[in-house]
Amino acid sequence: PRGPAMRCSPLNLCEYETSKLVRIKSVKLGSLKWALNGVILLVICIMLLWNKEYQEYDLVVSSVTTKVKGVAQTNTADFGEVVWDVVDYSPNEEKNSFFVATNFIVTKKQKQGKCPEVCLLVFSLASVQTGVCVKFDVTTKTCEVSAWCPIENTKKPPRPALLTSAENFTVLIKNNIRFPAFNFIRRNILPEVDGNYLKKCIYNQRTDPYCPIFRLGDVVQGARENFADIAVEGGVIGIQINWDCDLNRFFNSCLPKYSFRRLDEKESNRTLYPGLNFRFARYYTENGVESRTLYKAFGIRFDVMVFGKAGKFSIVQLIIYIGSTLSYYALTTVFIDWLIGTSCYSKESQQVYSERKYESVQDRQEVKHTHTHNASLHLHPGLLLV
Amino acid sequence: PRGPAMRCSPLNLCEYETSKLVRIKSVKLGSLKWALNGVILLVICIMLLWNKEYQEYDLVVSSVTTKVKGVAQTNTADFGEVVWDVVDYSPNEEKNSFFVATNFIVTKKQKQGKCPEVCLLVFSLASVQTGVCVKFDVTTKTCEVSAWCPIENTKKPPRPALLTSAENFTVLIKNNIRFPAFNFIRRNILPEVDGNYLKKCIYNQRTDPYCPIFRLGDVVQGARENFADIAVEGGVIGIQINWDCDLNRFFNSCLPKYSFRRLDEKESNRTLYPGLNFRFARYYTENGVESRTLYKAFGIRFDVMVFGKAGKFSIVQLIIYIGSTLSYYALTTVFIDWLIGTSCYSKESQQVYSERKYESVQDRQEVKHTHTHNASLHLHPGLLLV
Amino acid sequence: PRGPAMRCSPLNLCEYETSKLVRIKSVKLGSLKWALNGVILLVICIMLLWNKEYQEYDLVVSSVTTKVKGVAQTNTADFGEVVWDVVDYSPNEEKNSFFVATNFIVTKKQKQGKCPEVCLLVFSLASVQTGVCVKFDVTTKTCEVSAWCPIENTKKPPRPALLTSAENFTVLIKNNIRFPAFNFIRRNILPEVDGNYLKKCIYNQRTDPYCPIFRLGDVVQGARENFADIAVEGGVIGIQINWDCDLNRFFNSCLPKYSFRRLDEKESNRTLYPGLNFRFARYYTENGVESRTLYKAFGIRFDVMVFGKAGKFSIVQLIIYIGSTLSYYALTTVFIDWLIGTSCYSKESQQVYSERKYESVQDRQEVKHTHTHNASLHLHPGLLLV
Repeated sequence: PRGPAMRCSPLNLCEYETSKLVRIKSVKLGSLKWALNGVILLVICIMLLWNKEYQEYDLVVSSVTTKVKGVAQTNTADFGEVVWDVVDYSPNEEKNSFFVATNFIVTKKQKQGKCPEVCLLVFSLASVQTGVCVKFDVTTKTCEVSAWCPIENTKKPPRPALLTSAENFTVLIKNNIRFPAFNFIRRNILPEVDGNYLKKCIYNQRTDPYCPIFRLGDVVQGARENFADIAVEGGVIGIQINWDCDLNRFFNSCLPKYSFRRLDEKESNRTLYPGLNFRFARYYTENGVESRTLYKAFGIRFDVMVFGKAGKFSIVQLIIYIGSTLSYYALTTVFIDWLIGTSCYSKESQQVYSERKYESVQDRQEVKHTHTHNASLHLHPGLLLV
Repeated sequence: PRGPAMRCSPLNLCEYETSKLVRIKSVKLGSLKWALNGVILLVICIMLLWNKEYQEYDLVVSSVTTKVKGVAQTNTADFGEVVWDVVDYSPNEEKNSFFVATNFIVTKKQKQGKCPEVCLLVFSLASVQTGVCVKFDVTTKTCEVSAWCPIENTKKPPRPALLTSAENFTVLIKNNIRFPAFNFIRRNILPEVDGNYLKKCIYNQRTDPYCPIFRLGDVVQGARENFADIAVEGGVIGIQINWDCDLNRFFNSCLPKYSFRRLDEKESNRTLYPGLNFRFARYYTENGVESRTLYKAFGIRFDVMVFGKAGKFSIVQLIIYIGSTLSYYALTTVFIDWLIGTSCYSKESQQVYSERKYESVQDRQEVKHTHTHNASLHLHPGLLLV
Repeated sequence: PRGPAMRCSPLNLCEYETSKLVRIKSVKLGSLKWALNGVILLVICIMLLWNKEYQEYDLVVSSVTTKVKGVAQTNTADFGEVVWDVVDYSPNEEKNSFFVATNFIVTKKQKQGKCPEVCLLVFSLASVQTGVCVKFDVTTKTCEVSAWCPIENTKKPPRPALLTSAENFTVLIKNNIRFPAFNFIRRNILPEVDGNYLKKCIYNQRTDPYCPIFRLGDVVQGARENFADIAVEGGVIGIQINWDCDLNRFFNSCLPKYSFRRLDEKESNRTLYPGLNFRFARYYTENGVESRTLYKAFGIRFDVMVFGKAGKFSIVQLIIYIGSTLSYYALTTVFIDWLIGTSCYSKESQQVYSERKYESVQDRQEVKHTHTHNASLHLHPGLLLV
């Protein structure tokens, strides 16, 4: 009976094999099966949509430029009336951050020389001891040190801060982003925004969420800090720009979302050297002698942190995801078969069901082996039918 | 009949169950099955190779140092003949970027004081109004301001740019990268490159793609910009170093690929404060009075952006990938069974096929339930055979 | 016989289909099946635990501030006794890195003018040739150049380095990290660490692994370099802070791990412009004439590189992982069926087994087709039973 069809035996090209099924007519089991499959499908779909498993992702590549504006005026006993512009209070610029000095300790006319130490520290910060003792004031003698003299006064920073009005300074942040994998470019100055609007807008989370000009006071307030407080000792504020982009055609969205956060430890007493300060100097020569004015600048460093990712539908990701969940449908049958075999049915039903589901056959070789030991049964040719 | 074998019942260690199959001798169905399986295998293999799903990835950790070389000479009415070296035109260096000033507005001998405002801006950038009105020139009166006087001229930057010859400056970029997960280190100065070659080479995409010395004019041209144009108002150019490394033994490749791109908005009229400029000052004292020379420097910031990833064969990734695609082969049978049941075959064939494929059995309990209502049939012990 | 049950035919809600199985009573096959399944389970579990496939990951967002302390004294023929404090030796600060100058070539009182070239370079670094020849010393004539005169001496940096004592400087590194996806914040100054301890501790890999204050000499030594050597020409040292966090409840751990590595090429002869140096100047005016002191500073740039990732149990990741491995269990049956069909059993056994496993049926249409050609067999209604 296998005559003509046997000709195409390699690879079984002329045969199609499919499982023989036992069909149990049972509303209970049928409903259970479909209910379970439905639950699995639902869970898989929810996971798919919730985690966007159908997308491939790319991380942002970003470029930032900042421009601070504003001018402050101070009137102190030491220096009289002084105007501070951006060159004075923002001495060094960086790519992704800018520093605004808000408080100063100024030590004028320092020269290299020998002078009495101001205070006795474990680590002498800016001087080398000469080993000689000199008068510091009428009552005290301290060690003489080689240093830039006079030594910087280690008093605490002025309170309130000298440049508290820096609160009203503004900063323009330009941010160009790119997702290399999708060849997608965008700027935080949105193309649909009007040029005149840009010239006078100030960022506000509710009313002007896409204005790229920020008032420093608003930024600090957005980080839940008080500008007057942070201005005294300085600190680090993060300006986070979050791009969560969906580049699919119908859900297309790619807008910057700004948020602000203090990045250093707020509570002075819980940390070492609280706040943020650094020293810089302006050097002069007069009659061949070099002198310098030392500035200990306390201030706020604003770190512009751009992060984001873009997702785009990827057929490969979807196929892999579906493939890795398909197997769960097989578990429905495994589970219901186990259910039938254990609990739901009477012994009789199980017996009948089992007879239809399973056809038993005995391994011939093992039976032979067993019988050799038991010496009681015939040997059958091939497998034993039980 | 289940005598000796039943002894090993726990875990069914002595039974092996396998599906009973219906074998349909049909060249059409057999070929269809193998064709479908072949297509699935092909798609899976293409996806595997195309997306390199068999690899695990690590992102680059990078360190960059740059060194700009070159000198320019200007001859202007204001300053006479001046030579600009790297200290003058590249005032601040950063880790991953360098700035080359190409144009200047210089305001000499500024002193703190009061002077007439130059122009009436909404935001006064560098001065505080005193509330007094003074003569600005013969015909105009403006408000008096406290500021560094004289106030910087808000004229446009010189055109052509003062240091257009910065085009011929060169920069050496050293880039060390590392893939921590694979403990793999590499430099952009390739070990096989000759020392003498390095001393005189200039990067060229075609002829010298691995030379780490770049002519600034070439970089700007590579970003499809005109150096003379960008030099006037400044801008940001990205020097992208892309490391796409395959660390597998046979496909081993890990070479830097350079590309250039303008990162800021090119068209002046479409953006606020186009280009790139910042101010810095040199401070002097004469006879105890501080003065400064204010420089508004326009220039090009070159951001060196290193990105890349390394892939290496991972047996775990491969197993997961294959596992998530294995299920698709089961779909072949599901599909063909559905095909047989619906369209391809005559009603008669379907009937015969169905009889062989399915063995039906009626749930005893539900039949009883049904019959209680219908009161017409016998109750069978166990499941009903249909 | 399909009376009442047929009412719920859509979706087959009232039918449950399950594979008909052939049960072979064989200890060998049964054991083999369970052994294979056990091996698969073991491999899957090992992969799961080893690669933590049950976790979702987030990359670190980091903020760094550094504060260098220390003072050095030099006594050279040229300058006499000079004290260097942090303002002098660390001229520019950056967000994630700090520079400590360890060696200087100082050129005092440079003025714009014309002077003889010191040496003949291919690329003239800091001067423009005027085309005139002038006496350089008694025996040599060189080309006259426009430049800041006198031109910087291109001699090699002093050996030993001027500020070799920078080895004893210390740096406090503050690092705040965040994992945005898990809203988890942490600092490298651990909350359980005592304030008094912090004031005097120095990092040591064994005894003080969580002290945030580093002695520069220890850092360089940790990178397996000699401070006195690297101080001469400069270099780049990476201070890597690795946060490998497990945010699950029971395995909770998130501690910084510091490591040090030299990032530039160590061997001078293998690279172009070895070490690290940059020039800066201090500008002066006397009687309206600008002069400058040029510093070529050799030194060590310390790059603070923060990287890390946090893992947290994710039910979705676990479900996808298990789903993509479930398919492998099906392979056990495929493999054993193939085994039975090929090698282990005698022809007779295979025949018997095959008869039970497979029910063959001939495609009616193809038989008809074949018979049309062969003209030898009856046409059967429906599929042929073989």
